[in-house]
Amino acid sequence: MGENWSFLDSVEPNFRPLVIIELAKGTKEETIEWLTKRIVDKKANGGAQLLIKPLLTENGVENIYLVGASHLRLLLGAETVGLVKECNDNSMRAFTYSSRKTFKHFADDNHNFLTMAECQYIIKHELENLRAKNEKMIPGYPQAKLYPGKSIVRRLLTSGILVQIFPLHDREELKKLSHSWYGRVKVGYQPLDDIRCYFGETIALYFGFLEYFTFALIPMAVIGIPYYVFAWEDYDKYVMFATFNLLWSTVILEVWKRICAILTYRWGTLLMKRQFEEPRPGFHGVLGINPVTGREEPVYSSIKRQLRIYLVSLPFVCLCLYFSLYVMMIYFDLEQWALDYHKENESNFSSLMLYVPSIIYAVVIEIMNRIYRYAAEFLTSWENHRLESSYQNHLILKVLVFNFLNCFASLFYIAFVLFDMKLLRQSLATLLITSQILNQFAESLLPYWLQKRYNRRMKKRTCSKKTHMDLSLAEQVNMEKEMGTYLGTFDDYLELFLQFGYVSLFSCVYPLAAVFAVLNNITEIYSDALKMCRVYKRPFAEPTANIGVWQLAFETMSVISVVTNCILIGMSPQVDALFPDSKMDLVLTVALVEHLLLAIKFIMAFVIPDKPRDIQTKLAKLEFESLEALKQQQMKLAAESLKE
Amino acid sequence: MGENWSFLDSVEPNFRPLVIIELAKGTKEETIEWLTKRIVDKKANGGAQLLIKPLLTENGVENIYLVGASHLRLLLGAETVGLVKECNDNSMRAFTYSSRKTFKHFADDNHNFLTMAECQYIIKHELENLRAKNEKMIPGYPQAKLYPGKSIVRRLLTSGILVQIFPLHDREELKKLSHSWYGRVKVGYQPLDDIRCYFGETIALYFGFLEYFTFALIPMAVIGIPYYVFAWEDYDKYVMFATFNLLWSTVILEVWKRICAILTYRWGTLLMKRQFEEPRPGFHGVLGINPVTGREEPVYSSIKRQLRIYLVSLPFVCLCLYFSLYVMMIYFDLEQWALDYHKENESNFSSLMLYVPSIIYAVVIEIMNRIYRYAAEFLTSWENHRLESSYQNHLILKVLVFNFLNCFASLFYIAFVLFDMKLLRQSLATLLITSQILNQFAESLLPYWLQKRYNRRMKKRTCSKKTHMDLSLAEQVNMEKEMGTYLGTFDDYLELFLQFGYVSLFSCVYPLAAVFAVLNNITEIYSDALKMCRVYKRPFAEPTANIGVWQLAFETMSVISVVTNCILIGMSPQVDALFPDSKMDLVLTVALVEHLLLAIKFIMAFVIPDKPRDIQTKLAKLEFESLEALKQQQMKLAAESLKE
Repeated sequence: MGENWSFLDSVEPNFRPLVIIELAKGTKEETIEWLTKRIVDKKANGGAQLLIKPLLTENGVENIYLVGASHLRLLLGAETVGLVKECNDNSMRAFTYSSRKTFKHFADDNHNFLTMAECQYIIKHELENLRAKNEKMIPGYPQAKLYPGKSIVRRLLTSGILVQIFPLHDREELKKLSHSWYGRVKVGYQPLDDIRCYFGETIALYFGFLEYFTFALIPMAVIGIPYYVFAWEDYDKYVMFATFNLLWSTVILEVWKRICAILTYRWGTLLMKRQFEEPRPGFHGVLGINPVTGREEPVYSSIKRQLRIYLVSLPFVCLCLYFSLYVMMIYFDLEQWALDYHKENESNFSSLMLYVPSIIYAVVIEIMNRIYRYAAEFLTSWENHRLESSYQNHLILKVLVFNFLNCFASLFYIAFVLFDMKLLRQSLATLLITSQILNQFAESLLPYWLQKRYNRRMKKRTCSKKTHMDLSLAEQVNMEKEMGTYLGTFDDYLELFLQFGYVSLFSCVYPLAAVFAVLNNITEIYSDALKMCRVYKRPFAEPTANIGVWQLAFETMSVISVVTNCILIGMSPQVDALFPDSKMDLVLTVALVEHLLLAIKFIMAFVIPDKPRDIQTKLAKLEFESLEALKQQQMKLAAESLKE
Repeated sequence: MGENWSFLDSVEPNFRPLVIIELAKGTKEETIEWLTKRIVDKKANGGAQLLIKPLLTENGVENIYLVGASHLRLLLGAETVGLVKECNDNSMRAFTYSSRKTFKHFADDNHNFLTMAECQYIIKHELENLRAKNEKMIPGYPQAKLYPGKSIVRRLLTSGILVQIFPLHDREELKKLSHSWYGRVKVGYQPLDDIRCYFGETIALYFGFLEYFTFALIPMAVIGIPYYVFAWEDYDKYVMFATFNLLWSTVILEVWKRICAILTYRWGTLLMKRQFEEPRPGFHGVLGINPVTGREEPVYSSIKRQLRIYLVSLPFVCLCLYFSLYVMMIYFDLEQWALDYHKENESNFSSLMLYVPSIIYAVVIEIMNRIYRYAAEFLTSWENHRLESSYQNHLILKVLVFNFLNCFASLFYIAFVLFDMKLLRQSLATLLITSQILNQFAESLLPYWLQKRYNRRMKKRTCSKKTHMDLSLAEQVNMEKEMGTYLGTFDDYLELFLQFGYVSLFSCVYPLAAVFAVLNNITEIYSDALKMCRVYKRPFAEPTANIGVWQLAFETMSVISVVTNCILIGMSPQVDALFPDSKMDLVLTVALVEHLLLAIKFIMAFVIPDKPRDIQTKLAKLEFESLEALKQQQMKLAAESLKE
């Protein structure tokens, strides 16, 4: 095996480690030998043609390997994954090796043409696309079956031989980024382009959305303050505020699509062609022929999956929703009981008892959320979706519905069954502020504390006064492999989604919600940034062109909020007083206004273009060019054919 | 000029005329010479490389020209316009000349590989893409300015030198088609594939939609009959019928998308790449640089257009809508006045007077519709849209809104202001049946009579007992050029749209509406078929993958009908009787049910996939193949680069 490494070193003297592969302790020699051979093997022989080196630590070889690639290999990989880069004429084009000279900042000796995140993404892509040829199993592990075309890395992961693959941090870049991002207290935008270069588009887009959303909430917050301070509860001001909020929420969601297009155009992902999606690691089935690719791979009947979704998952989710409502009813009973108890025997103990139901309910909700989350993950995985994207969508839908109900059901109950506006305002404020404080704690204070502890631990371990910058590669890898894994933007978006619900669903009852949301989001940016840079392993960059299903979720919330706000306004005593004679007229007016607002929302969503005009023009230009190129090619062919 | 024709004849001995060009009488010789030269010139010299011949009639040359093309030229043209054809392995692929052998039914001597409609479409495309090189004007007409890249045919049309271009009928094919289509009374599907081969996809899709829509209405009609016969007005049956209708209308619109995908996949248009759209003939502006193509062409500021739309067109449309409502109010006043008059002096004259307001109103509506249509066309053309598609969308929107109001405003007024269900049912029946009879007359009897007259005229002119089949080419051309021009499917879809409104908006009041609609549509199929085959010039085929903006229009109508039906049911005495104590509860229940139904509709639209699974698989397969091909190409390149 030794000769392999030396061979590599002679080929690429300045080997730059990009990705770490950690194998299970005690992995068999023959497996390691086979895997490294496949990784370094020539493309023509079905290898990945990457570079690999074992990490040599003080304790000897620890089954940790560093993966890198030559500059040329990375450029060819960039073409394979379809990276889009800026050209010298400022247009964005898919990078191809043959046209490399036309790209901005390209030079044969400029190793920064591709960002480190892009290089790591390419290596990940190449590793995942390393496929079995005629191996029947992983050498040394007869139970880990292979078939031609099966991704080797995915099989290694599912059979536990491969513990993890993760990209390495770049200490220097990270320090620069964290300084400009959250290092100093400043008023200004986040360095989104730098974030994108370091963490990739998905994460940069989340931070872009978080920032945009915070800015977009400011008008609502500013208008909300005088309503709270002067207790403006006149009919006209009241309705104006709610109407503004409802239309504003449509506008901000439509404008976000435009901003998202601007960002992702600049980052190249708007133009990036969707790659063919491979089955997700957990997908299983009988070996058959995929009708799309014609390749042998596990096949699972779509009807079976539909049956599982509609006959098991759907009833289960409904049951959970029912159970959650049932728990809520118990809470309200308890609350009533505590109130009665307090009235009967007024004592310190009884007034303390008043808080008990809320605390129990909060704890139960948290527990239910956790259990449900596991159940949802289990069910969605049991549904056996072929694609990761479809798995994600089904999981998000399940979790979203349950969280929505858990967070808002009690508020809906108070508003539309108990008709108690005062209690609603109070509960809303309590829920919003509590959840924000809890989240801030879990996301900001906890990470801060973890980081402190981890710094102490590291210092102890290295037994020296070296700063982070001076850590040896082995120390860095050992440190990073112990860090937590960032599980994606799901929880971060969910938090924003629920916040949007608090702000918009009952906006006319509690105008201060937007103020709290803005304040929370400002610290959220800092705590999330800290989390990304210090707490978690570096995540692989994931190119994306939009925030996906979350756009739909936010839009649905804004439609629901039209309904709730109209009912709330209709129920308010100020509006009630305008229809002293007939409650009927009141209800009909409210229904009419609601339908009008919904119609306006849909028309606005239809009229506002999803992409700004200049992006549209640029996209049309690219499409026109490719059509012209095709035509030129055909013309040449035609001329030749007609000559014959 | 003479040598030109003989030259052509020698090249292509069996010249088949496909498209007719009619120039204005007295067009200058130099213009004709220049135009024919440009049409026959080689592609390399910027010509269209087509064949052209003057039509020689008994009266000598009449400025009518026959255009054709060699078989090879048509095949190359098929590649240029991006025709998609079936391959030997039953997959659909874009035709390319180099891969011609892999296509089903292709043989070098099989001149039926391309249908005549496809050939005509190719010739139209080539003619329209014949562009000015460095001509500053059309020779002989200094006022008809040209600039490099301007479409010559479009300039000839706008300056009146070119009277018309139309494709020639194929007598034999037409006879076969009309026999299988409407020639015999039979129960069965229309020959959609044959219609598509002869008239192109847009028209075939209209007939497909008409047929599908008729079938889809049958369940509603069948369920509606017992309601009418037995006068079932119990609460439960009543609500069931309405609910069924509302959900059914969502289902049929979603299923249509799937059927549309199946049809257009088979016809190849689902896969056809959108061509770059040229400015529409009426578009004008200052000569500038198109930011997309980089070519010199008229440019018109988008802001100016937006101003025209929002500051002139929108207020004008609103004014017209207001005026239409005003006229409706006058009609109701007149109606009341006539009723009072009849009560005061009961006589034969006074009972006749009862009908006068309705007749006047019907006539006024018809006049208003006509005037408005002209105004809408004028305004939309004045808005100066660059693309035909955008012009069409704005025109359709304008006409749709006005027609919707004109047809349904009086019904809405009767239902929701007068609360007179009996009058509503009566008016609905009158309006529906009258409009159907009028349409049937205008579309079926009138064409039949026109055809008879035209047959007589033709017989007189040819002074012989020759059948149509034996007509000489000159006679056929002269006959066809006098026929009316089919202006597109707009009016046909509009009729179906309004019918859908009559059936769905007030379905719970008049269950028989669906029965009348079904009966009407069966004859409609025959009359429309007759119209296409006998009354109008053959239209150019227009490839399309869906029914475009009409899908949206029908979906909007089905959303509105949820609202109207819920209100109607809420107002019915049967439902009213269920809430004897509180009208409030009634209104709230109705509102709740309406929101539930709307939510179900949106969820159904979201859950039902727009394309059937097998079409999805086929599309995915094609995409996968093209990605694989690209990858292979890159791999080859990579292997070469890495060798260096």
